[in-house]
Amino acid sequence: MSNPHLLSWALLAVEAGATLAFALSGLLEAARKQLDAVGVCLVAGLAAFGGGTLRDVLLDRRPFFWVTHSNWLWGLLVLCVAAMLFLRARHFAPTEKAMQWPDAMGLGLFSASGTQLALGQDLPGIVAVFMGVITATFGGVLRDIVCNEIPTALRDHRPYAVCAFIGGWVLIGVQQAGLSPGLALLVGAATASGLRAAALLSGYTLPRWSSGAERR
Amino acid sequence: MSNPHLLSWALLAVEAGATLAFALSGLLEAARKQLDAVGVCLVAGLAAFGGGTLRDVLLDRRPFFWVTHSNWLWGLLVLCVAAMLFLRARHFAPTEKAMQWPDAMGLGLFSASGTQLALGQDLPGIVAVFMGVITATFGGVLRDIVCNEIPTALRDHRPYAVCAFIGGWVLIGVQQAGLSPGLALLVGAATASGLRAAALLSGYTLPRWSSGAERR
Amino acid sequence: MSNPHLLSWALLAVEAGATLAFALSGLLEAARKQLDAVGVCLVAGLAAFGGGTLRDVLLDRRPFFWVTHSNWLWGLLVLCVAAMLFLRARHFAPTEKAMQWPDAMGLGLFSASGTQLALGQDLPGIVAVFMGVITATFGGVLRDIVCNEIPTALRDHRPYAVCAFIGGWVLIGVQQAGLSPGLALLVGAATASGLRAAALLSGYTLPRWSSGAERR
Repeated sequence: MSNPHLLSWALLAVEAGATLAFALSGLLEAARKQLDAVGVCLVAGLAAFGGGTLRDVLLDRRPFFWVTHSNWLWGLLVLCVAAMLFLRARHFAPTEKAMQWPDAMGLGLFSASGTQLALGQDLPGIVAVFMGVITATFGGVLRDIVCNEIPTALRDHRPYAVCAFIGGWVLIGVQQAGLSPGLALLVGAATASGLRAAALLSGYTLPRWSSGAERR
Repeated sequence: MSNPHLLSWALLAVEAGATLAFALSGLLEAARKQLDAVGVCLVAGLAAFGGGTLRDVLLDRRPFFWVTHSNWLWGLLVLCVAAMLFLRARHFAPTEKAMQWPDAMGLGLFSASGTQLALGQDLPGIVAVFMGVITATFGGVLRDIVCNEIPTALRDHRPYAVCAFIGGWVLIGVQQAGLSPGLALLVGAATASGLRAAALLSGYTLPRWSSGAERR
Repeated sequence: MSNPHLLSWALLAVEAGATLAFALSGLLEAARKQLDAVGVCLVAGLAAFGGGTLRDVLLDRRPFFWVTHSNWLWGLLVLCVAAMLFLRARHFAPTEKAMQWPDAMGLGLFSASGTQLALGQDLPGIVAVFMGVITATFGGVLRDIVCNEIPTALRDHRPYAVCAFIGGWVLIGVQQAGLSPGLALLVGAATASGLRAAALLSGYTLPRWSSGAERR
């Protein structure tokens, strides 16, 4: 890469935008459930950092991302306080809509980086891909479990984890074909994000399981 | 043992059957909750591998079972796809009934092996027994939490964790009495599985807590 | 300190009282949900040991508290059996009321010790404070998740995690001001416990988030 500085800044910007989108998804969910100030902060934090933390526990990596960059925790607190002061119910729907795009970029980046971290530990491809899926989805899963809902990622029939799954395999494919890890990360992330964006734009849904529905 | 090869094949067959039973329990629960394809795979995976993974996180063991044997993850995916294609609602009840027996065998095997892994780290008996109970039950507990239910293992008054608990103490007893670890594993597993089978056949239920019920 | 023996006995007494209060909170919740004997023991165990265990998993500390002191697990089992034999529904409300005070002391002790353990690993202040909050609150969070409720700590608008948060910062402040770790622990714990006690006595509640309520 000709300009590694520029690239790493771009990656950091995507990461920050995506973490913000994840945190806001938790914040809005907590607000809808009428949680108190503590609940808002904890659910936003789970949504933002839960997936990466679970990945690091499973891969036995320390320190966690939010330990090395502990100013992100401050950012989360500031975000929650600001939201409680300024965010009104009429802002919820437009905020969620606007957050779809940084969220899609985060889906790509987090799943690709999760996959690549696992590959770096010489884990098998299927495990690495699942680590990417876990990184991208389990923040939302934990957010919904704490809020006493069946996780959206498991039931809304819109492709999300599937995009991470495909992006992970593409990353492995191009990396084995000889691409450098940095470029492979970009290709994998772009695939997952692109698929997600296409799904959002087209309104595509995963096929229903007829058997579950036919008798109930 | 005269034929270690035969024994390890038998253990592997029990393990595969039990993992299949656990995965199917997650799959059926996901189908009942009308989850999408991603939800079916993740819940089946949690049910199959969640208990052993939690045990390994607590015991700080790496790599996980499903990392060493990553083809089991492929098996899980194939199982889920096959189920979504071929399993109809009318198959659910008979599938669940047929799965009781491999599930009971898995209860014994997983709790006994969990107990023995903890003993191998020189943990106290009560801790080792709880590790066995966690291995055998937490897949189902996580499955039910994700599906937004109070876990069956905690409320259905049928002995399940209790069988694992007793089997674990029997294992510790016979191992301290001088039995080889391999035989102690078999005795402990047979005890837990046998108790579960007896409970299934007799319809025995755990005593109710009168105090919780009497006023509400 | 002139009498370290006396101090460590006092700390142990507070710890035992608080663990008892946490375990009883799980036990009463399980009884209300009509769980069976296994459910009562597991939910009481999660409430008592869940927060500290999650902290140790995140900090990668082994062995767990309940492994080193495995007789506490026996204590838990004895407590659950005794409660199922002797605790009647009419005892529930007075038990809960009496447990508020050891629980408040446990809030202080566990959050301060969690914060100090994290500081001992040279983690940043904000991370250490969050570890204290997690230690003090996640037992209750896990208890409520398993019982299929939105965790009380996130929605009851009474300050609990907030007391742990403030106590953690006070601990860090006085320790950086030169106080010995033992005294800093006491000051931090007393701050958190005192704030909690003041909140209990005054009936203070956290401010509502108006935006979540105004349209629903």
